[in-house]
Amino acid sequence: MAEDGTATKRAMMGQAMTGQAAAGLGKPVASGGTLLHGGDLDGARAAFPGAPAPWIDLSTGINPWPYPLPPVPLDAWTRLPGRGEEEALRAAAASCYGAPSSGLVATASGSQAFIQLLPRLCRPGRVAVLGPTYAEHARCWALAGHEVRAVERPEEAGVLVIVNPNNPDGRRFAPGEMLELAGAQAARGGLLVVDEAFADMRPEDSVAPAAGRPGLVVLRSFGKFFGLAGLRLGIALAPAALAAALREAIGPWAVSGPGLVIATAALGDRDWILATRDRLARASAELDRLLEGAGLRVTGGTELFRLVEDARAPSLYRALGSAGILVRRFEHRPDWLRFGLPGPDEAWQRLGVALDDWATRETQPT
Amino acid sequence: MAEDGTATKRAMMGQAMTGQAAAGLGKPVASGGTLLHGGDLDGARAAFPGAPAPWIDLSTGINPWPYPLPPVPLDAWTRLPGRGEEEALRAAAASCYGAPSSGLVATASGSQAFIQLLPRLCRPGRVAVLGPTYAEHARCWALAGHEVRAVERPEEAGVLVIVNPNNPDGRRFAPGEMLELAGAQAARGGLLVVDEAFADMRPEDSVAPAAGRPGLVVLRSFGKFFGLAGLRLGIALAPAALAAALREAIGPWAVSGPGLVIATAALGDRDWILATRDRLARASAELDRLLEGAGLRVTGGTELFRLVEDARAPSLYRALGSAGILVRRFEHRPDWLRFGLPGPDEAWQRLGVALDDWATRETQPT
Repeated sequence: MAEDGTATKRAMMGQAMTGQAAAGLGKPVASGGTLLHGGDLDGARAAFPGAPAPWIDLSTGINPWPYPLPPVPLDAWTRLPGRGEEEALRAAAASCYGAPSSGLVATASGSQAFIQLLPRLCRPGRVAVLGPTYAEHARCWALAGHEVRAVERPEEAGVLVIVNPNNPDGRRFAPGEMLELAGAQAARGGLLVVDEAFADMRPEDSVAPAAGRPGLVVLRSFGKFFGLAGLRLGIALAPAALAAALREAIGPWAVSGPGLVIATAALGDRDWILATRDRLARASAELDRLLEGAGLRVTGGTELFRLVEDARAPSLYRALGSAGILVRRFEHRPDWLRFGLPGPDEAWQRLGVALDDWATRETQPT
Repeated sequence: MAEDGTATKRAMMGQAMTGQAAAGLGKPVASGGTLLHGGDLDGARAAFPGAPAPWIDLSTGINPWPYPLPPVPLDAWTRLPGRGEEEALRAAAASCYGAPSSGLVATASGSQAFIQLLPRLCRPGRVAVLGPTYAEHARCWALAGHEVRAVERPEEAGVLVIVNPNNPDGRRFAPGEMLELAGAQAARGGLLVVDEAFADMRPEDSVAPAAGRPGLVVLRSFGKFFGLAGLRLGIALAPAALAAALREAIGPWAVSGPGLVIATAALGDRDWILATRDRLARASAELDRLLEGAGLRVTGGTELFRLVEDARAPSLYRALGSAGILVRRFEHRPDWLRFGLPGPDEAWQRLGVALDDWATRETQPT
C-alpha cells in the first residue's frame, strides 16, 4: 500500500488510532519465503482452464481423513458457549498435548489468532524468525511494528520464533534444545515462541509437556492433524500469567459452540489419535515412493506434507496443474514444491499417473 | 487481581511484554452496571437446587426461534475457508444491513472480538461510554489502558461508545442524531462506536446505511436476531481504511467454515428476516402482557428483551428461580430485571404460572 493510503487511513481513523497501528498498515510485508497460502483452487482453475475436474488440492498440510464429526446438539449453535464448555476444551487440550494444566491453555478461533495477537501484546522490539518458514509469523510481527529478521539459526532477540517441525522443510529441533533456548530467552526477559502446528504426529518432539516454563509459548493447531481446518481452533500453551493474558485479550466465546463440542471429543479420543499417527506415517511413506518413483528427491517435510527439491519443479507444477492437481509453490524457492497427502484412492491414482506422465516426458529426448 | 499478580506476570512475560498490556491485567474492571453475563445456568442450578428441570433461560437476549440451519457440506469443516467465501459473507452482511459496500465490512468470531480489538487499535485516551449499559465496552477500553467514564448523555471524548438501542433499557437515538455525533467526533479526530447488537428488529433506527462516514464505527451481532449465538459471528462497519485495518488485525479465517455457510444464507434470507421481525414484535408484546398482568411495569427493552423496574425485583427473581426460570439481574440496579423471550409454548405457560403465583403471594396479606 502506498504512502497515500496510510495518510488517508490516519486521517479517517482520526487521532484516536495509534500511529503504530496506522503505520503498520502501510508497511511492506516481511517475507519468510512462503508468501502464497495453500488452497487457492480458484486461482488454479483460472491458470489451468482445461484441467480435469474435480481438482485435487495437495497445496495444504491438512489431514485428508478428518476426525468423524460427532453429533452436534442444536443448542451448541443457538446458545452462547458456557464457561464450563470452554474449560472442558482447555482441559482436553492440556491432556492431549501432555501439558501440566488447563490453566496454561488459551484457545482462539485458529492459531492464526495467536499469531496476530502476540505481536500486539509485546513491546515493539527485535524479533528473530527462524527461516525460511511459513510467512505469517514474520508478517504479523512486522505489521505490529517490530523489527523482524529471518535468521538461519536460533539467536538472541527479544522474541525468537521457531516452527518445529518446520514448514515446509520439516527441520526439527529436539525438545531439550528448545527448552535450553526458552531458558536463555527467559533469562534476558524475552520469549521463545514455538509453533508446533505439525507436531501432533510425533509427540516426543513437542515441548508442550514443559508448558508453564518462563519464556516459553507453544502454539498448536487443531485443524491440521484432526483434518478440520474449517472448525477454527488454535491453542496456546504458556506460563499461567501469560495464558491468562492471552485469554483476556482474546475474550470469551472465541470458539464456536459446535467447535467446542467437536474439538473436546476429538482431543480426548486417544484411539483415533494413535490410529491416525500410524495412518499418516504410512501415507507419507507411500507418497515418498510415488515421488521418488518419478525421479524426484524428497528433502524434508512432516507426515502431513513432503517437500521436493528439483530444478524442474516449475515444469512439474505445470504438468500437475494441467492434470487438475494443485501443489504448493514458493516464491523465493522455485526449485521447491510441497505435496500434501491425497485422500481418496482415486486421488492417489491420478497423482501417480500425472507423475509418471511427467517423468516419462522429462526423460524422453526432445 | 492484586499488585503481586501483576508483578509476577511482568516478570514471567519478560520485558518483551508491554507495560500497558501487563498493567492492564491487574486493573480493576470498570463497571457499566451490568456485570453479570446472561446464561449462567450452572450458577442458577446451584442457587436453586430444588427448581424443576428443565431450566428456562430468559437471561439472554437471543431469539428463541433460530434461523433453520441449512445443510453444511463436510468440506466447510475440513478445508480452510476460502477468500471467496469470506467475501460472500461480507457482501451478504453489507446488503442485509443496507451498508454501501462490502469493503466497509469486517467480520470476526463474535462482536465481542471487535469490542476487545478496537481499544487496542486506538491510542490510549479518553473514552466515554453512554451508560448504564452492557459492561463489556467499558471493561475492554479500561483494560487496554484508556481512561473510561460512564456518561449519561453523549459528550466529547476521543472515543464515544453508544449502544443503540441500549441494553438493557432500550434507550434509542435517531439515526440523524447519531450521524451528527459521528460528524462531530470525526471533526476532532475521534470515533463514535455505535453498538447495534439489537438493531435488527427496527432497521430504520440503524446508521449502518451511513457506514463509511469518517469517525463512524457500527458493530452488529449476528447471533442475537438470528438466534445462533453459538455460531460466533460479529460484524463491524467502518470507513474503508479502518475496515481494512480491522480485517488486518483480526486476520484471515476468523469465522468458521460452517459459520460462513450458515450466516451467508441467513443474512440473505429476506423472507425469514421480515417474518422474524413480525414474530418478535408479537412475542415481546405478549411478554409485556404477561408481565403487566402480574402488576409489573415494563420500562424499556427491545423486541428481544424487556426491562422491568420494581422494588420487589429481588423477591421476583427468587420466585422465578425457584420455578426454574432464570432472568437477568443487575448488580447496581437491584430494582431491575431483564426478561428474554420464552420460546416453546411450555416455557410461556410456566412463566405465566410463576408470575401469577408470585403476584398472588405478593398481594396477599401476610
